[in-house]
Amino acid sequence: MAEKKYVYAFDEAYGLGKEILGGKGAGLAEMTHIGVRIPEGFTISTEVCTLFYETGKKLPDYVVTQIFEAIKGIEKKTGKTFGGDHNPLLVSVRSGARASMPGMMDTILNLGLNDTTAATLARETGNERFAMDSYRRFIMMFTNIAKGHPRDAMDKMLHDLKDSHGYKLDTEITTEQLKELVAKYKDYYKNVFGEDFPTDPKVQLLEAVSAVFRSWDNPRANVYRMMNSIPYSWGTAVNVQSMAFGNKGETSGTGVAFSRNPGTGENEISAEYLPNAQGEDVVAGIRTPLHIDELKTRMPKVYEEFVKTIKVMEKHYRDMQDMEFTVEDGVLYFLQTRNGKRTPAAALKIACDLVDEGLITEKEAVTRIDAVSFDKLLLPGFDKEALAAVKTIATGLAAGPGAGTGAIAFTAEEAERRHNAGEKVILVRAETSPEDIVGMVAAQGILTSRGGMTSHAAVVARGMGKCCITGCSSAIINEEKRTLTINGKVFTDKDIISLDGNTGNVYVGSIKTVAPDLTSGYFGRLMGWVDQYRELKVRTNADSPRDAKQAHDFGAEGIGLCRTEHMFFAKDRIFSMRKMILADTVEEREAALAEIEPMQQSDFEALFETMGEFNVTIRLLDPPLHEFLPQEPALIKELAEATGRTVDQIKDKINDLHEANPMMGHRGCRLDVTYPEIGRMQTRAIIKAAIAVSKKTGRLVTPEIMIPLTLDEREMRFVKNIVTEVADNLIAKSGLNMKYHVGTMIEIPRAALLSDEIAKEAEFFSFGTNDLTQMTFGFSRDDAGKFLPHYYSNKIFEEDPFKTLDQNGVGKLVEMSVKLGRATRPDLHLGVCGETGGDPKSIEFYHKVGLDYVSCSPFRVPVARLAAAQAAILFPRKK
Amino acid sequence: MAEKKYVYAFDEAYGLGKEILGGKGAGLAEMTHIGVRIPEGFTISTEVCTLFYETGKKLPDYVVTQIFEAIKGIEKKTGKTFGGDHNPLLVSVRSGARASMPGMMDTILNLGLNDTTAATLARETGNERFAMDSYRRFIMMFTNIAKGHPRDAMDKMLHDLKDSHGYKLDTEITTEQLKELVAKYKDYYKNVFGEDFPTDPKVQLLEAVSAVFRSWDNPRANVYRMMNSIPYSWGTAVNVQSMAFGNKGETSGTGVAFSRNPGTGENEISAEYLPNAQGEDVVAGIRTPLHIDELKTRMPKVYEEFVKTIKVMEKHYRDMQDMEFTVEDGVLYFLQTRNGKRTPAAALKIACDLVDEGLITEKEAVTRIDAVSFDKLLLPGFDKEALAAVKTIATGLAAGPGAGTGAIAFTAEEAERRHNAGEKVILVRAETSPEDIVGMVAAQGILTSRGGMTSHAAVVARGMGKCCITGCSSAIINEEKRTLTINGKVFTDKDIISLDGNTGNVYVGSIKTVAPDLTSGYFGRLMGWVDQYRELKVRTNADSPRDAKQAHDFGAEGIGLCRTEHMFFAKDRIFSMRKMILADTVEEREAALAEIEPMQQSDFEALFETMGEFNVTIRLLDPPLHEFLPQEPALIKELAEATGRTVDQIKDKINDLHEANPMMGHRGCRLDVTYPEIGRMQTRAIIKAAIAVSKKTGRLVTPEIMIPLTLDEREMRFVKNIVTEVADNLIAKSGLNMKYHVGTMIEIPRAALLSDEIAKEAEFFSFGTNDLTQMTFGFSRDDAGKFLPHYYSNKIFEEDPFKTLDQNGVGKLVEMSVKLGRATRPDLHLGVCGETGGDPKSIEFYHKVGLDYVSCSPFRVPVARLAAAQAAILFPRKK
Repeated sequence: MAEKKYVYAFDEAYGLGKEILGGKGAGLAEMTHIGVRIPEGFTISTEVCTLFYETGKKLPDYVVTQIFEAIKGIEKKTGKTFGGDHNPLLVSVRSGARASMPGMMDTILNLGLNDTTAATLARETGNERFAMDSYRRFIMMFTNIAKGHPRDAMDKMLHDLKDSHGYKLDTEITTEQLKELVAKYKDYYKNVFGEDFPTDPKVQLLEAVSAVFRSWDNPRANVYRMMNSIPYSWGTAVNVQSMAFGNKGETSGTGVAFSRNPGTGENEISAEYLPNAQGEDVVAGIRTPLHIDELKTRMPKVYEEFVKTIKVMEKHYRDMQDMEFTVEDGVLYFLQTRNGKRTPAAALKIACDLVDEGLITEKEAVTRIDAVSFDKLLLPGFDKEALAAVKTIATGLAAGPGAGTGAIAFTAEEAERRHNAGEKVILVRAETSPEDIVGMVAAQGILTSRGGMTSHAAVVARGMGKCCITGCSSAIINEEKRTLTINGKVFTDKDIISLDGNTGNVYVGSIKTVAPDLTSGYFGRLMGWVDQYRELKVRTNADSPRDAKQAHDFGAEGIGLCRTEHMFFAKDRIFSMRKMILADTVEEREAALAEIEPMQQSDFEALFETMGEFNVTIRLLDPPLHEFLPQEPALIKELAEATGRTVDQIKDKINDLHEANPMMGHRGCRLDVTYPEIGRMQTRAIIKAAIAVSKKTGRLVTPEIMIPLTLDEREMRFVKNIVTEVADNLIAKSGLNMKYHVGTMIEIPRAALLSDEIAKEAEFFSFGTNDLTQMTFGFSRDDAGKFLPHYYSNKIFEEDPFKTLDQNGVGKLVEMSVKLGRATRPDLHLGVCGETGGDPKSIEFYHKVGLDYVSCSPFRVPVARLAAAQAAILFPRKK
Repeated sequence: MAEKKYVYAFDEAYGLGKEILGGKGAGLAEMTHIGVRIPEGFTISTEVCTLFYETGKKLPDYVVTQIFEAIKGIEKKTGKTFGGDHNPLLVSVRSGARASMPGMMDTILNLGLNDTTAATLARETGNERFAMDSYRRFIMMFTNIAKGHPRDAMDKMLHDLKDSHGYKLDTEITTEQLKELVAKYKDYYKNVFGEDFPTDPKVQLLEAVSAVFRSWDNPRANVYRMMNSIPYSWGTAVNVQSMAFGNKGETSGTGVAFSRNPGTGENEISAEYLPNAQGEDVVAGIRTPLHIDELKTRMPKVYEEFVKTIKVMEKHYRDMQDMEFTVEDGVLYFLQTRNGKRTPAAALKIACDLVDEGLITEKEAVTRIDAVSFDKLLLPGFDKEALAAVKTIATGLAAGPGAGTGAIAFTAEEAERRHNAGEKVILVRAETSPEDIVGMVAAQGILTSRGGMTSHAAVVARGMGKCCITGCSSAIINEEKRTLTINGKVFTDKDIISLDGNTGNVYVGSIKTVAPDLTSGYFGRLMGWVDQYRELKVRTNADSPRDAKQAHDFGAEGIGLCRTEHMFFAKDRIFSMRKMILADTVEEREAALAEIEPMQQSDFEALFETMGEFNVTIRLLDPPLHEFLPQEPALIKELAEATGRTVDQIKDKINDLHEANPMMGHRGCRLDVTYPEIGRMQTRAIIKAAIAVSKKTGRLVTPEIMIPLTLDEREMRFVKNIVTEVADNLIAKSGLNMKYHVGTMIEIPRAALLSDEIAKEAEFFSFGTNDLTQMTFGFSRDDAGKFLPHYYSNKIFEEDPFKTLDQNGVGKLVEMSVKLGRATRPDLHLGVCGETGGDPKSIEFYHKVGLDYVSCSPFRVPVARLAAAQAAILFPRKK
């Protein structure tokens, strides 16, 4: 039986794909295929990475055999010999994962050198200095990377050498001095490891390959993967490639090139060149690369070939390319190419330009835009030059994108007051609560010392498109003394700070911000294509006319979630709400509700008017009632006086409403089951608003009333009956032929499991993935922050399940619910309104399982439209 | 097309079953079939009850037509006419649900009477007094029951009449006086309803039938159904039967009979007889029935037929019968029969006797015992005579069965101290916490003013088989003043109270208790059959050798859940636990754990020794760590001093560990992910204990280590690796060929959904239905008490999902998990260890889905064995 193939020469690997070859390996195979000149070599497949970890971090024998056969292949093609005493073959050993992870894993160059090959190289190239320079670099890299030993001591030897001779540049070191350094390095190696530096290139090679596989698991790589949602299970490939020497003298050099400008997207080659150097000089920052004109000046013919080859590659890949190249003795080699990373703005321009150049279709252009970073286009950012001039004083979680500058305000009330007085403020709190909302609206940005990516501050800020940094643990906030202390430095309400919500960085002082450029026309063109191809509708989660207007402008096709409770926190309203909660009788409660009703009605009228032809889904009151009661003694006293109760009575009520686990307590439609008068009041407000707007505009409003936290058919029917009784009566009296829909959130596992039954009563489902994730995982969002970091570091989780839908578990419930629900009611209208409704990966899933729409915060609407289009293009639904 | 049949004459209904006919209707059809003399009549099926509610509480026309056809059928058979002017047909209209609901719904007698038929009846029977007596009874019942009007005013008219003539008995009223009363009643009726009393018997009949259907929904019936787990959807049937008159004179009478003694099970007819009366006289308590010897004396031939017919019926039904009978002019009619309710002790004896008499098989005997009340056999109860002499002072929830008497102790510490000093105490607390366990062990019973059926006190007490009353809201406990106040009466630690855990009643003073009688041999015989037929194994939840011993004696086949955390609450241990929690470094934590390890080990050794050949499943630490920290300032100070910290540091730590929703927080195996040293310590203690006991007894112990709160395969593998690394190492060193198993709780919905993957790592699953129910419903057990009553009263729920498994929702997850898990690992060992593991209805489900065992608290073990056998007999698994 033929042995399974794990090692592929570049010229036999074309078409195997990134899954097997990794990105770099696939690129090298493809470059070989289209005739770009690259140094010979081979790829050890990603499957070996898995084998490596499965067998206790060892390379299986059959893989070792294939590696050495591939080395023989290089020897044959180049005429060089690996470890031979003439024309020695030196190789680079590099990682190459399926997704690009620049700088995250390890690379070893010049492998194959020992005293013999170094001497041979010196003799045969007539360049002893080059040989010894390569040799000392190799020993250093091998010791540091393959053996995992810190490089400090060896760096010091190099610096001491330069200092003792007064050298500034590495290139000033003489050949003899390099030889001495090599000897010192080898002594040091023996000292540290108790054995000689390995002279056998085969031993060197296997150590280096293992080191690259090991580097898949290094902390840098793990963090990068987590940040970029790259699965640990993918593994990396290893590429072994004969060295091209950029350090052979003045007709040699190395550089990097982008086929277009990665910052702006301009169609101009953006490249750097460093003569007589190897790539690591650039990476290590030892020498600063020069403009590519340097190559044009020194070797115009090489430059010409360089430009021509880049254009060939860009045309072949039909995307902007990021390449590494080396010139060895006047011969140009490309070392790798890949699709280049670019700013969101550049991505937009490049995609449009490539369509205009006929290289890609509109659909392809849509799939070329990174949906994850797309919302950065929509928000102000700091001016880059201004930013470079200031220092980061603290870093927290980048919880809400954009940038903000202002004076520190320590309470919501203060933020609002100073904002109204014309001042720009940053709201600084240990954490925020619903009572802080007015202050958050007034602030340029929000900084909290506690809380994660889904804390109150984070969720609300993202909803507002407001810059927000949470969990900034080095910020010590003393609300009493009104101070913010960071690393010992004390800030007061006189101080100005700046927040970068895209990075989580906090700065002292004011930094100039720049508005997003959506006027170039590229944004409009792309969104035109997006809307043409997507199948999912995109709605927004909005509780105020301001948010609704914003979302409408961003292209939202209705409101998928209006949280009525947010309307109650305004100062003039929360008081009525509190009276309602304190009521001892149904009559008292109804009297308090009657005060709230006209306010709710006018809110809903404004929403219906703003959304025009689009539908608005209004959710009945959801949070536990104790969230509305005050905690501060002064407020409790005020409430007591105003309601004719004693402070103790108020405190008793607060204690009485206290819950051990409020997330699983008396909330959602459970409130309507116990206090049907709340549901009746809200229904009256919704239907009366719809009637009023219908009469005013002459267009019939069709409100959608959503029942939260439903867990089965009977409960749904009970609450629905409360709604329909009120609604039918009001509509009959109005004389209008107005319709309305009653549906439910699916956010309790049991509701997903019993969706066939619930669909008998519900006309629509909206998946509340925040709660559904909490219950399915048994995670409280408020508490999971304490143990989730351990889940990431131990690789139990790779993604935050509150940010990106857990497709295995929660997704299984969603899929089940969709199937069960549609089996009962084929025209059941299905959407999602949890946090994941604005997450591109999750949107792809929602597209695949056949939802009708996603609903997200206003500033995520363009992202969601884009992600929906990408999903529709990649996974078209069967019509 | 033939109309669907909804109305069945008794002689055409045999074999249709209780689902259609209700229990009473099925019984009447069956009695007709076996030739027992009963008055002619027909049954309106239970399906009509559903139709009635669906059509807005109306009888559909096609049903009305069938009813009147059936009336014609009675007329034909009896020669009587309904509303005719000779030989008038009078009927009774009675409810009859599928399950017996004695006295819960309405009955109307003597229907068909009006001035004409009353006069005819008087004339034709020559007994005018009887006719008028029946007439006045009918008007009263019709007004009260069919029309729903209170009977007070009419009762008063009767009493005034008697008072004005100095009568003591109804029978003293003269015929003329009865006529006057009828006239007064009819005037009153017209006054109240604004129309004449209906004279048309057909109108009377339809009103009465509707009234019975309406009574299905009355509050009494709803409460009874909830208490007895009878679904609302079953509906009731209505039986219309020609009247047999027990009030025709001294050769008439009425009575009830049990074919055996329902209290003791003795094979002797137990009956009562009331001459010249209708059944309602007995029910209303107006007259006290006499011993059946009265019948024997008055009409020996009738008595002889009575005894003979009872034996015929018992033989036919092969069970003890509960019958109503009437003698009309010396002719014996049976009105109904049904299987009689009996005490658990009687049930046991009757089942065994019926086997001995050859009437039923052993399997049938097993199914005849009510598993729900079976545990009452195992616990002491109050002496019945002693109980009759005392008054109930308060009533709470019957949370733990049995009876207890003792002096009041207000703290756990006090209870323990006084118990050790030889005093019997009742622990009285607002609610209990884990720190109270020693006091609960020491007490004769526990009374709490707060908490429900699944509060800490309730769960722990049931586990101990200890009498417990929770949620006794009229008990006001002042722990500072050390007083218990009930209805204004103050009790101190000098006072003795008694608790009946079977009823929830609290009494003042000492009441004699009687030990359960398990010595009669019946218990042993039955359990022998039970163990022969059941397929589920029964294990126990036990955390102490004492519980384990108790459960072992009750027949437990191993421990299905040992909660290690309960071991930490003892005074000498909790301190080490607190040090562990306060630790700032891994080293500090390991040092504190090292103190705990030998204690844990010795606990496990005792458990292994007690359970002998049976396996013991030990769950790793589950609760959030803050549960172990003190709340009282004095204890905090003590802890601070002992650990060399400041009080503020301890408070900070407590605050730091505070969680918004601890049920969904940092607990279960999440503790092992963050602090692997805890899992390592516990594994060491378990394996070292197993090794020690194996060596000591020469029998290899096979411990089962259970990982709690797992949510997927990777997490399971991570924690399992912690366990196996320690365990394999210790076993290798021991030189024993000892095995152990690692499995997991399935108590998070996601774990159920991903069971195929988890089963790759887990050798066994144990369903933790408490948490699984919480997460699947989104209900916190601690908080649901506030809204669940509304769910019962609004008929959204019919059962407490924490007591009986919710088969639709949670059960769906369990079934899914079983299928997925077994698909991966066919020999996956499956059990359940939540509260529902001891609930008969749930056990039937667990049998059906194919679990290997259930695990329950020690005192539920015999119940579980019985329920398992019943399930196996009724639903044998395919071999």
